[in-house]
Parts: sequence; C-alpha cells; structure tokens
Amino acid sequence: MLEIKHSDLAGRIGRLKTKHGIVETPAFLPVVHPVRQEISIDELERIGFDMLITNAYITWKEYGDAKDIHDILNYNKPIMTDSGGYQVLVYGNIDVDHPTMARFQAKIGSDVAVPLDKPTGSGLPRSKAEQYVELTLKAAEDTIRIGDNEGSGTIWAAPIQGGEHLDLVEYSSKRLLEMGYEFFALGSPTEIMEAYEFYTLARMIVTARRVIPLSKPMHLFGAGHPLTIPLAVALGCDTFDSASYILYAKDGRYMLQNGTVSIDDLEYLPCVCPVCSSTDPRELKELSNDEKIAKIALHNLYTIKREIDGVKQAIVEGRLWEYVVQRSLAHPKLAEANHILKECSEYLEQCTPIFKDRALFISLPIDQYRPELTRFRRLVCTNIRSDKSMLVLLMEPEEHPFYTSSRYKVIKDAIMNKMQVDSGEKNSDDSNNGNNDNNNDNNDNESRSSKDNVQIAYYSPFLGIVPEEVSDVYPASHIVGIRHGVSYDDFPTMLNAIIHFIKSNGFKRVLVEVDDRSIQVMKSIRDELQGVEMEYCWKAEDITKYIKSTKIN
Amino acid sequence: MLEIKHSDLAGRIGRLKTKHGIVETPAFLPVVHPVRQEISIDELERIGFDMLITNAYITWKEYGDAKDIHDILNYNKPIMTDSGGYQVLVYGNIDVDHPTMARFQAKIGSDVAVPLDKPTGSGLPRSKAEQYVELTLKAAEDTIRIGDNEGSGTIWAAPIQGGEHLDLVEYSSKRLLEMGYEFFALGSPTEIMEAYEFYTLARMIVTARRVIPLSKPMHLFGAGHPLTIPLAVALGCDTFDSASYILYAKDGRYMLQNGTVSIDDLEYLPCVCPVCSSTDPRELKELSNDEKIAKIALHNLYTIKREIDGVKQAIVEGRLWEYVVQRSLAHPKLAEANHILKECSEYLEQCTPIFKDRALFISLPIDQYRPELTRFRRLVCTNIRSDKSMLVLLMEPEEHPFYTSSRYKVIKDAIMNKMQVDSGEKNSDDSNNGNNDNNNDNNDNESRSSKDNVQIAYYSPFLGIVPEEVSDVYPASHIVGIRHGVSYDDFPTMLNAIIHFIKSNGFKRVLVEVDDRSIQVMKSIRDELQGVEMEYCWKAEDITKYIKSTKIN
Repeated sequence: MLEIKHSDLAGRIGRLKTKHGIVETPAFLPVVHPVRQEISIDELERIGFDMLITNAYITWKEYGDAKDIHDILNYNKPIMTDSGGYQVLVYGNIDVDHPTMARFQAKIGSDVAVPLDKPTGSGLPRSKAEQYVELTLKAAEDTIRIGDNEGSGTIWAAPIQGGEHLDLVEYSSKRLLEMGYEFFALGSPTEIMEAYEFYTLARMIVTARRVIPLSKPMHLFGAGHPLTIPLAVALGCDTFDSASYILYAKDGRYMLQNGTVSIDDLEYLPCVCPVCSSTDPRELKELSNDEKIAKIALHNLYTIKREIDGVKQAIVEGRLWEYVVQRSLAHPKLAEANHILKECSEYLEQCTPIFKDRALFISLPIDQYRPELTRFRRLVCTNIRSDKSMLVLLMEPEEHPFYTSSRYKVIKDAIMNKMQVDSGEKNSDDSNNGNNDNNNDNNDNESRSSKDNVQIAYYSPFLGIVPEEVSDVYPASHIVGIRHGVSYDDFPTMLNAIIHFIKSNGFKRVLVEVDDRSIQVMKSIRDELQGVEMEYCWKAEDITKYIKSTKIN
Repeated sequence: MLEIKHSDLAGRIGRLKTKHGIVETPAFLPVVHPVRQEISIDELERIGFDMLITNAYITWKEYGDAKDIHDILNYNKPIMTDSGGYQVLVYGNIDVDHPTMARFQAKIGSDVAVPLDKPTGSGLPRSKAEQYVELTLKAAEDTIRIGDNEGSGTIWAAPIQGGEHLDLVEYSSKRLLEMGYEFFALGSPTEIMEAYEFYTLARMIVTARRVIPLSKPMHLFGAGHPLTIPLAVALGCDTFDSASYILYAKDGRYMLQNGTVSIDDLEYLPCVCPVCSSTDPRELKELSNDEKIAKIALHNLYTIKREIDGVKQAIVEGRLWEYVVQRSLAHPKLAEANHILKECSEYLEQCTPIFKDRALFISLPIDQYRPELTRFRRLVCTNIRSDKSMLVLLMEPEEHPFYTSSRYKVIKDAIMNKMQVDSGEKNSDDSNNGNNDNNNDNNDNESRSSKDNVQIAYYSPFLGIVPEEVSDVYPASHIVGIRHGVSYDDFPTMLNAIIHFIKSNGFKRVLVEVDDRSIQVMKSIRDELQGVEMEYCWKAEDITKYIKSTKIN
C-alpha cells in the first residue's frame, strides 16, 4: 500500500496507493466541508493538495448514500472520510451506528475511511478511556469485516484511541494490527496539541509506531499546524488533516512556521506566498471580513504546503534531524519534546540511511543522539576489539580521516620510536626529528608484537571514542560540528563509550590528552576504571615530548 | 538621519531619510548593474525593494557624469553607489582617484555614496592591513570635505576597514566618527562570509558598533545570504547589499533560509513564492538557461525579502533573540557565532525594550544571556538588599508571580509559625494546619524584627535568584521556559547570582530546596560560601515539615 522512496529517522517519502490514484506522503489533507466549503476545492488542488478529507457523518445527514463522494465534492483525486468520531467527541453521541457508517463510507466510494470510533480525547479518567477504547475496537472489528464484504476497494483506517494513557495506545495498536488493518490513524491528539503538550503527543506516536510496522501508513488526526508536522513526520506519521487553515482564518490568525499571529499584530507579512506578495498588512486588515478570511485561509494553506515540502526536501537530503531540532526552538514545549529523540534513538535508526552524501551538522548536545552517531558508537562498542595493553586517547583532530593527518603520523612515530627504546630494541635518539620517515621504514621491519602494543584513538563529544582504524568509517569523517562552546559535561554518551572501550578491551594504561575544557570530565572517568593506570597530558604541550618522557609499552 | 520606530537587541526598525525619500531599515539593497542588469528594476521594485545599490566606477566608465544615476537606472527611489572599492579589492588598483569618484558620485545624485576605499579583505598581513586602513581613512577625510563642498545632499558612508584585525576596525571607526560621518559601512566581509566565519564577522560588527552610536546607521557590504542577515541585524547593521541573488542563480544555486541548494538536488521546492508556487523542480530544471537563471534569481530575491520581513516582524514582537538563535542552527559555524551574544550581552541591552508584551521563550542555555535576563539579574544584584539573617531558597515554582501562589503562602506560614515557636513567642502547635489564616492574622501583630528574619527566594536557571519581593517584576513572571532536560551545570549565571546574593546580604544560614537535578550544583556553592551554614531539603519531601524540624531564626 505504501511504497517508500526515501527515508530518514522514522520519516518516509512514500507513494500511497488508493483507488483514485497515488498520493505522495507525507501529505496534508485539508478538511473540506461537504456542504459549506469556503475555499474552493479547485484552489486547494492548485496549491498542491492531492488528497482531501471530509466528514462522512455530515455527508450522510445531508446527501444520504445516493452519490459518490467524488461527485459531491467534484474532485477526482483521493478522498478520505472521517466517520463522525469528532462529532462523538464533541456531542457525546450521534444518531447512527458504526455498521451503518461502515456501509455508507464504502458505498460513497471513500478512498480511505474510518470506523465510527469513540475518541478518548484528553484528560479522560482511565476507566472511561478503557471503555472508549473497547467500544472503538469493537467498531473497528465489525467495520473491517463489513468493509471487506462490501468489496469497494476502500482502505480502512484503524482508529487508535487511548490518548495520554500510553498502555491503552499500545493495546489498541496491537489489537488493530491483529484485526488485519493496513492503515492506521492516531486519534484524539487535538486537545493535546492545543495545550502544546508535544512531548505527550510524541510519546503517543512512538508508542503506536513501535507496534505498527513502518511499512504500514499512519495518519495523525487534527494535525494542522506547521509546528507539529516536522516532529510527527520524523516519528513516523504519514498523513495529516485539519481544518485549522479556515478556523484560524476566521479568528484572524495568520500561520507562520513558528506559530500563529493575530493579523492585528502583524506589521509585516514575513511570507512571500502569492497572497502575501501581492498585498501588505494594512490592505489585508482593511478587507471585508469574508475577503480577509479567504486571503488568510489561502495564506495558511500555503504555509502548510511549504512545511510539507520543507520536510520532504529534508528527508531527501538526509537532514530531517537538523530540521526537526531547529524547528523545535519555535516553542519551549516543542523543545522539551526533543526528549523523545533521545529516548527512541534506536527506533529512529530503522529508516535512517546507513550512508549519506551530506555532512552531518552538529550544533547542540541533543545531536549526540542522532541515529548515525548512536550507530557509530555501537559499532565501536561491539565490533572493535583491541589486544593492545595501552591506549593513547587524543583530543578530536582538525583533519579527517585522522590516520591520514600529519599530526597522527608524528604521534604514531613518536610512540613507535619510544616503544623501541623502552623495549631496548633501539637506542634513544634525540636527533630523530627530521628522521621520521626513516624510523617508520625501520618500524615496518619490527616484530608485530612490539609495534602493536599501543592503540591510538581520539575522543569526540558527538562520536564518543574513535579508534584509529575506524576514523574513516561513516560518519566519523563526515561531521561539521560546533568547535567552540562545547561543554564536555553534556555528553554522557561520550563518557560511556570511552569507559566501555577501555574496560572491554582490558587496557592497562591510558594516556589521555586533555585541555582545560575536557580535563575535569576526563579525570572523572577514573572512578569507573579501577585498576587502569591513567595519565593526562595537556594538549598545549607537545605530546610527542610527553611520549618520550613516559614509558610506552 | 535615522528615526527609530522599534528596536530589540541592537536591531532597529528605522526610517532612513535620503533625498529620494525615506527607506525603512533593515533594508536589503539588491546590487544592480548600470549597464547589464538581468532582472528588471521594475521587478525588484514590485518584490518590495525600495532602495538599490549600483557601482559608481562602472557607471563613470560607461556614462561619465552627464546623467543622474536615477535617470540611468530609471528608478526614482534612493540609490546607493559603491565607489569601486570592490574592483580595487579584486584588481588591485583602478584608473581613477578618490577625489574624482567623490565629485562624480555627488554629481550623479547618489543618495548614499562611498569614498573610494582600499578594502583589507581577509587574510591580509597586519602591516598591509594597517596601510590599507590609512589609505582608506585619507580617502574618507578628503571625500567628506569634497562632498560637503558639492552640497549635493548625498549621504556619505564611512568605509570601515580592518577586516579580522579588530583593533584596526576599532581605530577606523573612531577616526571616521571624528571626521563627522553620519552613516557607516563595514567593509570586506565577503571572504569572511564565504568561509562561513560568522563569529569573526560578528566580532567585526560589534567592534565597530561599540564605537559608533546606534543612532547612526551602518551598512554591511556584500551580505546577501538569508543566513547572515538575522545575526547582523541583531548586532546593529541596518542595510545590506549583494549581487548574490543573480550570481547564485547563474550557478544554479537556489537560496533557502538555511543555505543554498543546487537545483539539481531539489526534489521539492520548499518555497511558496510566486515563482515556486507556479512551477515544480522538474519544470524548473528543464527551462532554457536564461529562463532558469531569471526564475532562480527571482526566487532568491523573494527569499531575501522574506528574511528581511521575518527579522522586522521579530523586532516588532520583541523576539529577535529567539529568531536569531533558532536561525543559527542552520549551520554549526553560525551556532558558534552565538558566542558573541554571550560576550556582548550588555551592548545588546541598549536597544532592548524594558518591557515586552510577549512572554520570553527560553529553550537553551544560551538564553540565560538574553538582555532581559541579564538586566533582571543585575537588578537583584544591585538593588535588592535584605537585612534578614536566614535565606530560604526554593526551587522555581510553577505559579507566577510566586508570592501569590498557595505554595508560597503555606511555606511562608510555616516559617512564621516556626519562628514564633523557636523564639518562644508561641507554643509548638501540631494542629495548626487548618489554622493558617488565623496564624497569619496573629503574625501581623508580631514585631517586625521577628517576622522579617527570613528572606524567601527561589532559584531559576534563567533568572538566577528571585527574591520574593521581585517575583512579579518583569520578566520574572513572563517566561515560558523549558521544564525538562535542563542541566543546572549549564547555568553559571545562576550560580553567580546566588553566591553574590548570599554574600552581599550577609546571610548566616541558607536552607536550599533541591531535587536530584540540582543537588550537585547547589552543593558546589558551599566552597564559595565559607562561614555560611547551608542546609539542603529535598523537594519531594514536605518542606513545611522540614521547616518545623529545623531551627528558623
């Protein structure tokens, strides 16, 4: 049902097959009213929306089942119908049962239809939430059976309820998956989104997504704000719907990437859409109410369209993480939600490409949890085995890959030379500075056991520990990171990686290069490394001199 | 010359008066070619550019001084002319002297003109840079005298040279200010910007701006990338110019807020400008070369226009800091440049309003250096004097202002009650829980000396320390901050504020409420507070019980 073209984190660009054609996801489905639609459907299509959603319950009340929904709306692309669950949420109950709505949606030719569910909304006591979840599951079970019998080719969207009760979300997802659903729809996030509880929303999405394979598409109900979309896509949502574009417009709320602004507070239009580039705030404010609403609604739709295209281009370029983190600074409650990125790093790895063309941009401590970096640290942790007894742990070099740099060569030669001296293979030679190549040639003839006694690696806040032999492995040499202002305290993943590497390889001595930013943190690891002899050497000093003065092997 | 309408940080929205009318700043001046201009000037005007810049040297070579520059370009709004300094930078020397160019620019009716300078560029040895600075100063000195004599009404822009040699930038700025210039133009940043050395650029701007009063406008030469503009505005630049829109277009580079992308790499157009909303990447790629260049150039201009309007709206809303920090995540080298915000917090205060309508959004440690917060910490540090002997230092409350919250009342009552008990004014009364109002009434009749013996305050990563009496002072109650994921280690300003408050008020005992995130940091301040008795109480415990069990007064 969903063919995946590109992916990054748990976000995918896919081709969703419906009976009225293929829709590229992530897709935003504007809510249209089957009777009183203020923005013409032609206009929606022109802006670039290739799928719509409308309300099946209102359609049923208004038109009965005589006409196909595509004829009613005069739109020949895919249409999703929501069953009336929203009306149930608002009015308590409606005068129709779920088998009727199932048959009705099949009859009117919905491309994607939703069983008549009982939304949990937000803030419901647990016992009530449980009850609503069970009612929804019963409706879902009946509906998919009815839907199959109708043979209409409609895709049935499984309504996941449970709200902030995450175990209910998990339970719902499991049950719906067992019922054979292929398309899922996470319900009830509207109130949570309105309260800016983005972390709760994120946990709901991830909870559902951990049950539902990423090959099966997932819709997020009611998500119509550019603020929500990047994170929701990154966590695995494929389609979105909302009437926010028109509802906000009626309220005089102008959408921007970072939030909405009342048009009364706009002195400038920081937008270049066809609406905004042909007017100015004063003109806009002076329009008649209907004209004003129409213009703002169109602008809002362009803003959503741009957001979707921005997310897609970020997926193609493999920089969805950067996009999501940057966008999260729009609101502190969105920034808080980044916690989810830390918690589900392994989940986000699934769809993240193993290699990317583009360098990783690394600016904040949260970036240490990028899947590419988590993956690299795991590679070092599980795949790199060293039988050396000593580790020389350097600070992150400027040149990449490290083992090709001149600094690496000088240090390596100093170690080799010193090892020979210490083991009595060669006399101390104070005049060997200009003589490195020569020494190197000599080294090549030495016995392996002696030259292999020292492991070189460097430590990096983002990568953890990078042994010389993997310093060219992606992404070790493919990072553009912040150079100043890094506080090593903020990188627990680095400390864990270093400690694990030293312990698991049984190094007896570790020589650590430090500067005044790293000294404290690097000294703190001694407590975890009882029995390992730790020495510290200042970066400002010449490490080769230090190597000469200490015992190497 | 510059009338300031709104300001935030060192950014201003101003009205720049020229002889061809008023231009609102910050303004981007597209570079137009006096002979071969590819994008029509009408189009530039339609997009919303109300001032242009062109090259005086090329104009002189091509047309002589017979015609007014406004007639040559057929544009009746303000025109700035650059003198040919760029040609000097590229070709070494040009066949004209600075007095000629001064008279020429006055003659052709430039609204803003630049003395023929000798740009330092970047990477010049110091002695050469010094020499170029002196040559530029000589030209500037002669030019302003000639310009005054010509009486043309042209505004002369003082060319600040020195590049990355900051002392030369400072020296140039001082000398030019003494010469009587009213408009300044920071030269030579192009190479620095091309190398993404944004921190160096930022330091150049601040160095110049610390000399030049903010009432006098400053131009930044060659800044034509949306990436550079927000920070440059925030640091005090008013006008910008660049030919990047067309140069990038010729290179197939499509500008986005966060950088440029080759159109070959675009699968989506994450833009809704009139160009992009009427085409798609495939169509764009298939155009003839000239058409493609024209379309991309127009798109690039819209992107710059949007950036300028975005910055302006951020200034109006008082959230320029948030805008700059968010935008800085576009590139690690831009994120590094945020260091400047930390270093020049007091400089940025000058134009930051004392009160803002909107809550401050606080998401990252860098935000502790916001001018509003620096100002608040200074207020507490210099203006709040307490003669109490004990400080009860609580964690940041959920409710604001703190002194109106029920939690505050309960704690305050517990302290009062305990003080009375300890001082023997009242017997210990275990059943006083439901009796607080009553106790409170009693307290009002107690002697001041006893009830005033305890100072209550709370600590906050962003605000520092907030004594109860200023917990309603702006911005203490006007912050929407990140609640989870804050590492207290990252807030040195908080520790300094706490230590200073305790020391300067001579508290003898401090009771500190802590949780597992703050305990370590709050214990670390003991070393700085020799002689002060420090007690720690877990937040999870009932602090009122703790107060009952310890001695209060």
